[in-house]
Amino acid sequence: MKIEVVENVMQYNKEEADINRRLFKANKVFVINILSAPGAGKTTLIMETIRRLGDKYNIGVIEGDISSTHDSEKIKSLTDDVVQINTGGTCHLNASMVAKAVEKIDIKKLDILFIENVGNLICPVGFDLGESSRLLLSSVSEGDDKPVKYPKAFVKTDLVILNKTDMLPYSDFNDDFFSGKIKELNPEIEIIRLSCKSGQGVQGWIDWIENNI
Amino acid sequence: MKIEVVENVMQYNKEEADINRRLFKANKVFVINILSAPGAGKTTLIMETIRRLGDKYNIGVIEGDISSTHDSEKIKSLTDDVVQINTGGTCHLNASMVAKAVEKIDIKKLDILFIENVGNLICPVGFDLGESSRLLLSSVSEGDDKPVKYPKAFVKTDLVILNKTDMLPYSDFNDDFFSGKIKELNPEIEIIRLSCKSGQGVQGWIDWIENNI
Repeated sequence: MKIEVVENVMQYNKEEADINRRLFKANKVFVINILSAPGAGKTTLIMETIRRLGDKYNIGVIEGDISSTHDSEKIKSLTDDVVQINTGGTCHLNASMVAKAVEKIDIKKLDILFIENVGNLICPVGFDLGESSRLLLSSVSEGDDKPVKYPKAFVKTDLVILNKTDMLPYSDFNDDFFSGKIKELNPEIEIIRLSCKSGQGVQGWIDWIENNI
Repeated sequence: MKIEVVENVMQYNKEEADINRRLFKANKVFVINILSAPGAGKTTLIMETIRRLGDKYNIGVIEGDISSTHDSEKIKSLTDDVVQINTGGTCHLNASMVAKAVEKIDIKKLDILFIENVGNLICPVGFDLGESSRLLLSSVSEGDDKPVKYPKAFVKTDLVILNKTDMLPYSDFNDDFFSGKIKELNPEIEIIRLSCKSGQGVQGWIDWIENNI
């Protein structure tokens, strides 16, 4: 009985995600759902991307948080197309929340839409939002064992970015261990290493977007 | 109907937590439930504490993870009293899981029991485990906005530790902003700043344990 309810929830989310996906395709919007732990640098990555690609593409952002408009206020300085979702305690976004947020954006004019999920490496993993690609953002300061501790997040993604590489000199982070564990889980996955702070490696991410859009 | 189910779950957890609490009190064990985001340093803090207090007190550890025995294997080098809970995907520990884990430890001989919760700043907050004290561990590298983004975690805690202060010189972390936002949420809360890596400030945490045990 309990499992049946869960399956209904997931089935309903899948249907809503498919509706989102059709809407995004019809409007030729490349949608990236960004997952990470709290403080990995999702907002900073989005802001850095808008700075580099904002003249070439129309970029919108959906900000997911349990409460506050802290991140969307930061992004507002770079684009008008920002919508905040406050989940009111729920630990992940779902496709219905995204559908409601999309109604508040002029989706027709967008080329790229970032969805910043709630900071959480567990709950958002199972919820398809209808995105074109999913990005798992990890950071040097979280340690190299995240693929061991949160494996599903690294399996169900199209790209892994390792952020805060400027911290490597002050850290015990073992990149061979980190990337080895990811390749065990997801052999074909690409891993881009960058620092939003120093700018090193960010061009690799910009190239990835332009190759996949 | 949906709310009723949630209330039943929480009521059941509360009853189980009260049973745990009575067991801990009867055996004079000081139990600390540690919450944090992934990679804030829960395991490292526990290991550093055992190194400093392990000769004076019998210390046990319950390790909560969605999968793997990665952390408990590390702790096993310092104490035999380690039990791993694998939640199998669930994003937090609950009181029943802890009750089952406690059966596998010789609770009578323990003075201190650490419960390392699943790395997550949202879901574990609502679940009382029967602990004596709750610790919210944050880290410099996560950024100073965590109290704004995850307020409940900072309200429902007895102590905040800010870890990785060795990263402050390489970071934009604003401690006045961080501690100011925490004091707005939880005016009486104590904040201990430390670095498990350099050892700076760790004695303040050791003193806190000895004053509260």
